Amino acid sequence: MEKVTCFRNIGELIQVQPGGETPKLVKKTRCALLVSQGKVDKVIRDSEVNHHDFFREVDLEGRSVLPGLVDCHTHLIYAGDRKDEMEQRMAGTSYMDILKNGGGILSTVKATRQATEDDLYEMARQRVLRMMTLGTTAFEIKSGYGLDLDTEKKMLRVGQRLRKNLQVPITLTYLGAHTAPKGKTIDQYFEFVMEHLPEFRHLADGVDIFCERDVFTVAHLRRLFLHAKLVGFHQLRAHVEELSHQGGCYNAARLGAISCDHLEHGTPHDIRALELSGTTAVLMPGVTFFLGGKKTPPVHAMIEAGVHLALATDCNPGSSPSYNMQTVLGLAQSLYQITPEQALIAATHGSARALDGHKNYGGLLPGQRADFIVLKTNDYRDMFYCFGENFVDQTYSAGKKVKGKKDPVSF
Amino acid sequence: MEKVTCFRNIGELIQVQPGGETPKLVKKTRCALLVSQGKVDKVIRDSEVNHHDFFREVDLEGRSVLPGLVDCHTHLIYAGDRKDEMEQRMAGTSYMDILKNGGGILSTVKATRQATEDDLYEMARQRVLRMMTLGTTAFEIKSGYGLDLDTEKKMLRVGQRLRKNLQVPITLTYLGAHTAPKGKTIDQYFEFVMEHLPEFRHLADGVDIFCERDVFTVAHLRRLFLHAKLVGFHQLRAHVEELSHQGGCYNAARLGAISCDHLEHGTPHDIRALELSGTTAVLMPGVTFFLGGKKTPPVHAMIEAGVHLALATDCNPGSSPSYNMQTVLGLAQSLYQITPEQALIAATHGSARALDGHKNYGGLLPGQRADFIVLKTNDYRDMFYCFGENFVDQTYSAGKKVKGKKDPVSF
Repeated sequence: MEKVTCFRNIGELIQVQPGGETPKLVKKTRCALLVSQGKVDKVIRDSEVNHHDFFREVDLEGRSVLPGLVDCHTHLIYAGDRKDEMEQRMAGTSYMDILKNGGGILSTVKATRQATEDDLYEMARQRVLRMMTLGTTAFEIKSGYGLDLDTEKKMLRVGQRLRKNLQVPITLTYLGAHTAPKGKTIDQYFEFVMEHLPEFRHLADGVDIFCERDVFTVAHLRRLFLHAKLVGFHQLRAHVEELSHQGGCYNAARLGAISCDHLEHGTPHDIRALELSGTTAVLMPGVTFFLGGKKTPPVHAMIEAGVHLALATDCNPGSSPSYNMQTVLGLAQSLYQITPEQALIAATHGSARALDGHKNYGGLLPGQRADFIVLKTNDYRDMFYCFGENFVDQTYSAGKKVKGKKDPVSF
Repeated sequence: MEKVTCFRNIGELIQVQPGGETPKLVKKTRCALLVSQGKVDKVIRDSEVNHHDFFREVDLEGRSVLPGLVDCHTHLIYAGDRKDEMEQRMAGTSYMDILKNGGGILSTVKATRQATEDDLYEMARQRVLRMMTLGTTAFEIKSGYGLDLDTEKKMLRVGQRLRKNLQVPITLTYLGAHTAPKGKTIDQYFEFVMEHLPEFRHLADGVDIFCERDVFTVAHLRRLFLHAKLVGFHQLRAHVEELSHQGGCYNAARLGAISCDHLEHGTPHDIRALELSGTTAVLMPGVTFFLGGKKTPPVHAMIEAGVHLALATDCNPGSSPSYNMQTVLGLAQSLYQITPEQALIAATHGSARALDGHKNYGGLLPGQRADFIVLKTNDYRDMFYCFGENFVDQTYSAGKKVKGKKDPVSF
């Protein structure tokens, strides 16, 4: 007989079903969640619990249970912090001046190159555990702070160790084309990335590129994607239309990208491309918030067009040093003016769609991983209503309770 | 001999000194805080601790210590919640339609009138304790959800009970002129407020009025303030220039208001008035955030003019259901583009100035109440850098550790 754990006395259980046109949030009250071999078996009425004999029973005290949050865009493997830069920016120093003074992304590259693989692993492991206690149960992690072969590979090996040791869904992305390292032009460095791309095939699940003015062009994006497909990468991702409109979204969608990320400067043409290609739009309000930007992606036009939306932290030391998908939910409601339901669907089913196609997690549906969070209250809308507090009481990954640090990690 | 408690092994201690033109943040490292009879005695070097003999020693493990946050504008005594309204608003329902369907402020008035004084007290007490565990050590609380004599008095009696039982600095404000109750015009209700004003003299420290289009006019504000002065109220406050420009700020400042609150539509003329009168400008970014507004007060022009700034939650069930001054700090940095230092000064010294004139608290200075917070890290900028997490490990009020609930309260 299979060992079934029964999570009983659930006040409100939220599942996200794929649905026809759009995914749907389904709410069940006074129920119990049955978990077997780390997966969701089924949901029964709480009144039926006593008619069965379970291997283990866990009383959830009438609380709210949601699918674990999925963070489908992070740069969480890095060394150093950029708090000084934050202060300088608020005091009026321009980003270009910060760069000239040795700040910006190249300062993170420098610190990440210097860190040992073990140190980098330990810092990243602490971050992942912290994020899990805050409610995240699946991750995407990018390289991109090495900009040389050794460090890019070191970052991805750290990602693989995290995946193996923590037994948590982690999708790894090779973001060699993040920016050019000191001493090389964008064009020089891009050829280097192209030449060595095959070496990363077994270290990462996909590739990504930062397509932006003064960084990589649409022509670079097209060449990288075509080459990556030939080499055998299945997942193509791109940072597009963030600070300006370059045409990266349209081209990435045409070439079959699984996700197009940022999109603050997305146009109706881009929305049409995402709609036709089925590419997920990954939105990251934490960046807009942290950098004090005013421009947000055309979220409502995307929703009307039926584009699949996902939410992510973009966790990184420069533009979004947040570990907290709950914060992202609150920011999405406020900055994009979407409902708690829309935000929650995007942060679970939507983000899962951008990673594994929402087969194995993201909806808390029978057959999926038993990745879920138990809130401190019995109404998931409290997370949105009382913004800025931590509403996650417990996180379960494959049916097991996450024992992470309750405190913020040092940076 | 006096009983001195020594809080030792402080990694970073922040004090806010009044300074000449502008208040100044002073940072001391590796030090100890001496507290006697609930007040700050002095700060010594940590290396000197062993040369003394203290009544009690508390090891703060190298953490950061800040003055307790001061929340100088709240409506935290209320019954009911308005989560449904939040959802409706995000789904596109207009505020006027919400009002017509029985939502909005009048739904809070209804619930608050129906609540017993004991229930109202218990709900408010839980909120205050929750706010204290999140770092707030002094409060302003307004009435204004009664709009009749009985309930307005009931609210203020609850405030007095909180002050007496919790032994925490609480400033009480009579906000009879919040809006008109059902069945009365603004003019009719205003005359009622004026007539009964003397009955509130011993229940509240000051008066407040919501001066706004379709609510109370500048003429009402002037009449209320002059009458309040005659009756003997010392503190005049006003909700001004929030949704439109009415001239309330200029008039309130001229009549000697201690604070002008909101100010999203403030003009250079208003800034000049605040500068000349010394009135504190109370800013509440939580409202802008929660309502998804784009317009922020002219904060940088205020700073340049030397206007005294304060920060507050505006804690209320409709436009800012937040208990968390840490969230307000992060929002202020992002929405106003001010530095961590500027935000922290406004949320401590600045807010204290809007309440008791920063004599008794707000700076963690010798002679002031020993109201302080101990962070989970050793750098107060972490609260700003890693927005959306709770960085407060412990809160001390008059030198005593606050034992509040660690969980969010139900609404």
